Amino acid sequence: MTALSIGAFRAMNVDGKGFVVGSNLSVNGQRIADRIAALSKFGMDEKGHGHRVAYTKADIEGRAWFIELMKNAGLETGIDAGGNITGKRKGKNPLLKPIAFGSHIDMVPDGGNYDGALGSISALEVIEVLNENKMMTDHPLEVLIFAEEEGETIGSKAMTGQLSAEELKQVSETGLTMAEGIRAIGGNPDDIRSCIRKKGDFRAFLELHIEQGGILENQNIQIGVVTGIIGRMAWDITVEGVANHAGSTPMNMRQDALLAASKLIIAVNEVIISVQGTQVGTVGKINAMPGAYNVIPGKVTLGLEIRDLSMDKIKMLFSEVEKRAAVIAADSKTKISFQQQAIVIEPALTDKGLQQTVNAAAKGLGLTTKPMQSGAFHDSTHMSVIAPMAMIFVPSVGGISHSFKEFTKTEDMVNGANVLLQTILAVDKS
Amino acid sequence: MTALSIGAFRAMNVDGKGFVVGSNLSVNGQRIADRIAALSKFGMDEKGHGHRVAYTKADIEGRAWFIELMKNAGLETGIDAGGNITGKRKGKNPLLKPIAFGSHIDMVPDGGNYDGALGSISALEVIEVLNENKMMTDHPLEVLIFAEEEGETIGSKAMTGQLSAEELKQVSETGLTMAEGIRAIGGNPDDIRSCIRKKGDFRAFLELHIEQGGILENQNIQIGVVTGIIGRMAWDITVEGVANHAGSTPMNMRQDALLAASKLIIAVNEVIISVQGTQVGTVGKINAMPGAYNVIPGKVTLGLEIRDLSMDKIKMLFSEVEKRAAVIAADSKTKISFQQQAIVIEPALTDKGLQQTVNAAAKGLGLTTKPMQSGAFHDSTHMSVIAPMAMIFVPSVGGISHSFKEFTKTEDMVNGANVLLQTILAVDKS
Repeated sequence: MTALSIGAFRAMNVDGKGFVVGSNLSVNGQRIADRIAALSKFGMDEKGHGHRVAYTKADIEGRAWFIELMKNAGLETGIDAGGNITGKRKGKNPLLKPIAFGSHIDMVPDGGNYDGALGSISALEVIEVLNENKMMTDHPLEVLIFAEEEGETIGSKAMTGQLSAEELKQVSETGLTMAEGIRAIGGNPDDIRSCIRKKGDFRAFLELHIEQGGILENQNIQIGVVTGIIGRMAWDITVEGVANHAGSTPMNMRQDALLAASKLIIAVNEVIISVQGTQVGTVGKINAMPGAYNVIPGKVTLGLEIRDLSMDKIKMLFSEVEKRAAVIAADSKTKISFQQQAIVIEPALTDKGLQQTVNAAAKGLGLTTKPMQSGAFHDSTHMSVIAPMAMIFVPSVGGISHSFKEFTKTEDMVNGANVLLQTILAVDKS
Repeated sequence: MTALSIGAFRAMNVDGKGFVVGSNLSVNGQRIADRIAALSKFGMDEKGHGHRVAYTKADIEGRAWFIELMKNAGLETGIDAGGNITGKRKGKNPLLKPIAFGSHIDMVPDGGNYDGALGSISALEVIEVLNENKMMTDHPLEVLIFAEEEGETIGSKAMTGQLSAEELKQVSETGLTMAEGIRAIGGNPDDIRSCIRKKGDFRAFLELHIEQGGILENQNIQIGVVTGIIGRMAWDITVEGVANHAGSTPMNMRQDALLAASKLIIAVNEVIISVQGTQVGTVGKINAMPGAYNVIPGKVTLGLEIRDLSMDKIKMLFSEVEKRAAVIAADSKTKISFQQQAIVIEPALTDKGLQQTVNAAAKGLGLTTKPMQSGAFHDSTHMSVIAPMAMIFVPSVGGISHSFKEFTKTEDMVNGANVLLQTILAVDKS
């Protein structure tokens, strides 16, 4: 932190009467922690693991609880056709476009209590602090709690006009189709396009989120200023060998699909780390058939994904994986085939001006910062298509996410929420 | 084939009146093929795949069909307490111990039509041929169709006094406990020990079986003379890493349980082929958790088995696998643990005298032979504890077994059944 950066930051917060507005505001850390704990109860099993999967009873109940809090905070709430929860607060100047911010409250099966929840509860916290200080912003504000983020970011796709009729028919994690799920949470899949917000409808979209990786904690940095959200391509891989008796088939006469698949998994890892950069590649799914102790696997299916800020790099890396697969197939007398998944997520860059505002807000609070990419997707990926977008990251303990072990310290949640608050106030005055 | 071997073989088949008995008998190949096809229908699905799993409706109906054929062939049939089907035929000399032979008619899920079926139908065929030729053997004969071979060789374990009370409580492939399954097929689990046959109760036990491997076909040999059935030990392996977000966790910060498991699967293969011999080792089962495209696997479970004619060699190989696992775990920051399965199958050697009789019978028929081990278990494994035991193998096309692609040519089935017939006649006169 330098004196200059504090000065630059504070200068933006002078209101019409010459007062420094908002820079002395601070979120209520206890309220954030309490609400994180309260939201966690929706969908928690007896072991303390969370199952608030989109469109389930727990999701519906959690959403109702959240809407009630939003109403109590004076927001004009609604559920749009995509099932997204919206909460509007008037600004002094109704001609200005709203500043939007928020996240999601659904989770992956056996997921964590901070992913999405922190950004949602902190968005509401910003409203609470403004209310308590009787402060009205120039811009209208809008809290957005997106529906079904963890499966296919259905809510933010719908809001940004990127949801296809085909995707509505897909089956979600709950077993309902996306259309049925949207209906279950109060949306209207038959008129899905009515929820579309156009480019220019928002002054900005901001999302506070846990990092879901271990870089901030490892480097002892308090705030990550996100430069972009990496893109993703995914493939289903089939390795075909010959199922045979594990006792009577000599080692040199086997066409073992699992042995070949194992070589491919290692090859994927070798290819991904063979070039410099922050790209990632993962085989997260495997199924070996028939799957008995005493039968050599005849068929193995794998799920592969590769992510990077550059689509060209993703394609180059996959091409190397294919080359390695051809060699493995020939050596092991198996057949290896790849089926690319239809959904390709393009990389999304954050707005450079907003990056600077976030960084200045954090520095103004005396926090250490680091520019970094987001390895996970977020609703912000889609929102970047219609609005200048920025994301604020706070550390995840042990870098763990999508797990009941996911944890972020209250101190870091408070830091993130304060940066969100100060960024909104700065954008409001910019 | 040499003149001497024919002479030696024929000399054994001279009856009390100086006639050469039985050496001119031959099985009815068409009847064997027809019965293989008829038995296949029990449990066959619309795709032509077989599901005659022990204790299922298909198994029960297939057994009823088989018992009917046995009765029609004049056998005195029964179902013992273990659910085994027995079929007795009197001999000239009631003081002699019966010569027993047979196999099983249950199959693995999506199994083949020859494994077990050939030995069972050929055993009945021997009786049919003797009946048609009005020939009575000196020894009583007993056809044995063992219950639940494919899961845990429950029937033959029961008959040889090797079935524990604990195993009766185990859940079989059908979902029934072994005890419930035994009851479903007409056995009596409450008095299971009433079916025990003691050492010395049989003159011999003989089993004709498909090879279930590709050695005979590859080497163009007609009859395998089995020297022993290899033993087996099995382990459940757990690889524990850390489940994490596949997008936001840098490659160098991962503890990927599936990547470590892949290295272990390759290490198992390398260890098994690192020493000379016919040992086999297989990882046939794998499960990665949580098993999503976008989550680095945090836990992987594997099923490993190692088989050989020497238990010492199995233990030595496993010890090498453990050493490799320790290195992989350290390198990948995972934890790898092994849980040995309770059931250990000791190697079973066939009777040397009977091996010679089988070989001579085959040579007498002009067939090529090869001494070989059985990589698969059979009811003969247990029968070897109470009786001199021998097994006759015939080629499996493509070496494929435990699959709907399992196939043995009628010509090879006939060769096997004729060797079984001639071996029984030779043992009867020995």
